[in-house]
Amino acid sequence: MRSYFIRAGGSSLDDLVMLERDEPKPGPREVLIRVRACSLNYRDQSILTGNYFGGKVAADQVPLSCGAGEIAAVGGEVSLCKAGDRVASTFFMNWLEGPPRRGAALGAPPAPGMLSEYVVLPETAVVPMAANLSFEEAATLPCAGVTAWNGLVNGIAPLKPGQDVLLLGTGGVSILALQFAKAGGARIIITSSHDGKLERAKGLGASELINYKEVEAWGEEAAKRSPAGIGKVIEVGGFGTLPQSMQAIGFGGEIAMIGVLTRGESTPHALMFKGASLRGILVGSREMAVQLNRAIEVSDIHPVIDKVFPFEEAAEAYRYQGSPDLFGKVVIAV
Amino acid sequence: MRSYFIRAGGSSLDDLVMLERDEPKPGPREVLIRVRACSLNYRDQSILTGNYFGGKVAADQVPLSCGAGEIAAVGGEVSLCKAGDRVASTFFMNWLEGPPRRGAALGAPPAPGMLSEYVVLPETAVVPMAANLSFEEAATLPCAGVTAWNGLVNGIAPLKPGQDVLLLGTGGVSILALQFAKAGGARIIITSSHDGKLERAKGLGASELINYKEVEAWGEEAAKRSPAGIGKVIEVGGFGTLPQSMQAIGFGGEIAMIGVLTRGESTPHALMFKGASLRGILVGSREMAVQLNRAIEVSDIHPVIDKVFPFEEAAEAYRYQGSPDLFGKVVIAV
Amino acid sequence: MRSYFIRAGGSSLDDLVMLERDEPKPGPREVLIRVRACSLNYRDQSILTGNYFGGKVAADQVPLSCGAGEIAAVGGEVSLCKAGDRVASTFFMNWLEGPPRRGAALGAPPAPGMLSEYVVLPETAVVPMAANLSFEEAATLPCAGVTAWNGLVNGIAPLKPGQDVLLLGTGGVSILALQFAKAGGARIIITSSHDGKLERAKGLGASELINYKEVEAWGEEAAKRSPAGIGKVIEVGGFGTLPQSMQAIGFGGEIAMIGVLTRGESTPHALMFKGASLRGILVGSREMAVQLNRAIEVSDIHPVIDKVFPFEEAAEAYRYQGSPDLFGKVVIAV
Amino acid sequence: MRSYFIRAGGSSLDDLVMLERDEPKPGPREVLIRVRACSLNYRDQSILTGNYFGGKVAADQVPLSCGAGEIAAVGGEVSLCKAGDRVASTFFMNWLEGPPRRGAALGAPPAPGMLSEYVVLPETAVVPMAANLSFEEAATLPCAGVTAWNGLVNGIAPLKPGQDVLLLGTGGVSILALQFAKAGGARIIITSSHDGKLERAKGLGASELINYKEVEAWGEEAAKRSPAGIGKVIEVGGFGTLPQSMQAIGFGGEIAMIGVLTRGESTPHALMFKGASLRGILVGSREMAVQLNRAIEVSDIHPVIDKVFPFEEAAEAYRYQGSPDLFGKVVIAV
Repeated sequence: MRSYFIRAGGSSLDDLVMLERDEPKPGPREVLIRVRACSLNYRDQSILTGNYFGGKVAADQVPLSCGAGEIAAVGGEVSLCKAGDRVASTFFMNWLEGPPRRGAALGAPPAPGMLSEYVVLPETAVVPMAANLSFEEAATLPCAGVTAWNGLVNGIAPLKPGQDVLLLGTGGVSILALQFAKAGGARIIITSSHDGKLERAKGLGASELINYKEVEAWGEEAAKRSPAGIGKVIEVGGFGTLPQSMQAIGFGGEIAMIGVLTRGESTPHALMFKGASLRGILVGSREMAVQLNRAIEVSDIHPVIDKVFPFEEAAEAYRYQGSPDLFGKVVIAV
Repeated sequence: MRSYFIRAGGSSLDDLVMLERDEPKPGPREVLIRVRACSLNYRDQSILTGNYFGGKVAADQVPLSCGAGEIAAVGGEVSLCKAGDRVASTFFMNWLEGPPRRGAALGAPPAPGMLSEYVVLPETAVVPMAANLSFEEAATLPCAGVTAWNGLVNGIAPLKPGQDVLLLGTGGVSILALQFAKAGGARIIITSSHDGKLERAKGLGASELINYKEVEAWGEEAAKRSPAGIGKVIEVGGFGTLPQSMQAIGFGGEIAMIGVLTRGESTPHALMFKGASLRGILVGSREMAVQLNRAIEVSDIHPVIDKVFPFEEAAEAYRYQGSPDLFGKVVIAV
Repeated sequence: MRSYFIRAGGSSLDDLVMLERDEPKPGPREVLIRVRACSLNYRDQSILTGNYFGGKVAADQVPLSCGAGEIAAVGGEVSLCKAGDRVASTFFMNWLEGPPRRGAALGAPPAPGMLSEYVVLPETAVVPMAANLSFEEAATLPCAGVTAWNGLVNGIAPLKPGQDVLLLGTGGVSILALQFAKAGGARIIITSSHDGKLERAKGLGASELINYKEVEAWGEEAAKRSPAGIGKVIEVGGFGTLPQSMQAIGFGGEIAMIGVLTRGESTPHALMFKGASLRGILVGSREMAVQLNRAIEVSDIHPVIDKVFPFEEAAEAYRYQGSPDLFGKVVIAV
Repeated sequence: MRSYFIRAGGSSLDDLVMLERDEPKPGPREVLIRVRACSLNYRDQSILTGNYFGGKVAADQVPLSCGAGEIAAVGGEVSLCKAGDRVASTFFMNWLEGPPRRGAALGAPPAPGMLSEYVVLPETAVVPMAANLSFEEAATLPCAGVTAWNGLVNGIAPLKPGQDVLLLGTGGVSILALQFAKAGGARIIITSSHDGKLERAKGLGASELINYKEVEAWGEEAAKRSPAGIGKVIEVGGFGTLPQSMQAIGFGGEIAMIGVLTRGESTPHALMFKGASLRGILVGSREMAVQLNRAIEVSDIHPVIDKVFPFEEAAEAYRYQGSPDLFGKVVIAV
């Protein structure tokens, strides 16, 4: 079988190589997955370039946390799934449910990665795919989908029908959040620097569109467009967005902070006068992945894919993910 | 102006009379409403027949808790609304927000009723109508809509996308619950003795239909149709439904009990083995009414009205509400 | 090593036998426990007499769910504890955290039991003992303590300082609930038929004592003694207690139903007019056991033990548990 | 009667004057309070010096938000209290219950202040005093007590027995938080620059003491002293404390930010990797004040008063509040 590896000490796309390996065998509580599709997240770029927490990978590392496929074989003590099941990976190896905890995540040491024709995982590190999804669609969810779900559905101001939700930009997390928020009956305010993308967001159910190139004080503007008060901001970050998100948030609301891209310092005073909260989101638990797949099935949501690359062009997919005109996720078919 | 009254000591429709009265004047923190539509609830039948808590009314009583209209005038210290606003009544006079409390409710002593061309209420006893609603539609919500909303959205297992919700029958509360649950992304299982009504429920978004005449063990059947486990039952009652609702409910789920019609004894053992809850619902707070009107506006929900009667035919409306083929609410235009 | 067994098909104390067996060996993710103490629950009587869910045991079964001891050895992949750790068993084999779920529980088929000098359990089926506890004290907690904790601390009306809590009787769960509620700053109302026990409850921190032999309408009386409204009832059951608990509960409060002893039918109307809830409690998760051991350590709580029997007198302990003058738990030293 | 006023345009203690005025009369839903004691908060210093939100006061303003006394008279429609009741003021004029909202607060325009022999307030702007408190003690609670209570008891990680709570310093809010946290069964870690104060905190129930002059990295140290993870930080602020609080907080925990003194910018990345939250606290609702008075009564808590000044020496009290050796609240007897 063929797998991609980031070579030990790798720091660029030159270090991403495809190799032939023996098909692995599942242990007693493990499953063997025939991977059919993977998706890319910004985290995967950091891991490739050695800018992730652990620095450069010390040993050859299969990349990517997000994949979907069929169970090809199961170990003797497996009870949660069976051969033939369509499943997606979970982001964390060991966060099954309950409150947040520290843990290894797929696609970086010491966990396996998904960019491989076959992968062995503990039976608890996969979830059933929503029946209405293709493998390509299901592969977009383990990191970006669970992050959006956790941000919206949990915390001090959980999603409810009629809630005003502010989304920043049209990246993978924001567009999935848009689809979940719409399915949950929320009223959606979204920002972008690109009118075409705002129109596409409208097509997916956004009701208030703010071009932040035209409206520099977009946080204030969002607050104005929400007479009831914004209950939730999905803060995907970037330089200086947090102060504006704090201006936007309503009384008692919550800013769900997807931090990897949040940059710059800020003073959190604005939270205080509104009794508002800022919650750090680091993806989520297996249980959240189970829940979101159910929600997807019930509302027949189809994650937005910008482009699908063949397995042989994984490097192209990495490059393409940096392009400014992305709308939705970048997928690699396996 | 004209008002209906249940005569002191009244016990039947013969005691419902229409009288001319002087138009009332709002006090400093009160509003005068030009009522445009009212809706009927089963509670209104009990009040009319003297079977409500207080027994027969001791003084002439304007009936009905649920109405909608325009603000005709406001007292000098009113700040929450202004003349011309489209508003609906709240069910309780004094439950503004927060947890449940005891209190007087419109349409029964000692509170005023809505079946009148003009009504004076405290400014806190009205809420803004969702902009997309007609007065007839808005008049269906103060009791039945808030009850459905409270049952679904609050408690230990609040509505979330992908949740399985069981609805019993197609009465006013159940159909509104169907519409709210659908707007919130739930998967809906509904029972009826009538295939035609089940089909209409399907048209509104129900995915699992159970004819309880054909499937006597409908509680068990509902559980079977919910592989994920039913998270919420809106238990509108009737003889012997509660034991089946307890069979239907999933682990950690909640039965929201709208009790007026719940009859018969039961042993709650079944709750225990599933860690499930039973919550008593007695309509809800003003804040819940505010929230549900927002949700209605965002998802463009239109409450289902079975029939609208003119003001002069209020007695007909009372009679019609007992008819077995009802689907949705009975409304009186004012 | 020596273990007690309920003989296959057993239905009385005559079927409880002590046998010599080989010391078991832990698998890779298992631990070997040198048991030092066990405690008895009413469930254990039902299992012995063949009145538990599964009926008479089909194979020899080691009894008792509740034990504490030292880790004697650990399997090669164990990471949660190490040899020498002082631990208690968990009630369920597989409910680690999160919402309720179905599962096997210690002391009944198909799970192992604790009344043995050595027991092998999965590493996730033990929790660290609070440092201030003896083995005898720690052995009282896995079922009765976690039940009390779950009832008080979770649900729609979680324990908070100043909350009024009603406890029924002075059995094992009620006395542990008293100690936890006191540690959490609650105001405690307790019932008993025995003034001496009420005095002992006062010594543990109860502020309102009701002798239910003298005050038949104890539910109403409890409500009177709670001007703020009772926020939580720990309903441990018995014939006809539930209707009175429903009279006692305050607006928005929760009756946590520990159902094994709840008998008789009831109509739950009373819940409705107070917006109150009834939650089924079936012990709780491993995480709850971890939390309560921390709470015990912080507040230096010592569970009340009525009597400790030596290992050789296990049958005496079973008999003694039925005595009417019990106050606190019955323990067997191992 | 005598009242203190900050003169219009005032900016220093020279502008605080005592004047004779006619005793005010309560309106229909108002109460007249014979004030017996007031307490000082840092906010009161800002208002005096014109550094509060509105700047210098535009008209003569009675200062102080926090007072306690007896009801001397009530208006004709008052139902919540009666003459002779011992009551304390609420901080906000109109935040009765429910989620946070904007509103006027006592002691600053446009609301009245408490530093007066008699004050008229709406009946909803007072709460019953805990029976065990003196007027001096009750006067410490409306701002500092409710702030501490809101921070601890609400939010995403509410106080529960066994929870680890970190308190910063020994100011009024921190010491009240210590007392409430202790009453709720928490384990308390507290910082100070002063060993004597740490010892006093130990006397009140703190178990871990950190002198932040000796341990510069106190946030990290606090985390080390909490094997279970700190569930709540009461962040009362100062330059650069927030980054250390973020290091201290445990997985899924909450930093309750009492912001007036929080200074300096910070990057909230640390929250993310622990799924932790930061919640802005701006005092709290009337309902919270009701709850905390109940909790105080049940656990017989006595707020710590550093010094009581006579009414004539109000200016001395203002000056004394700035002294570095304060432990507990500064009170003015009226």
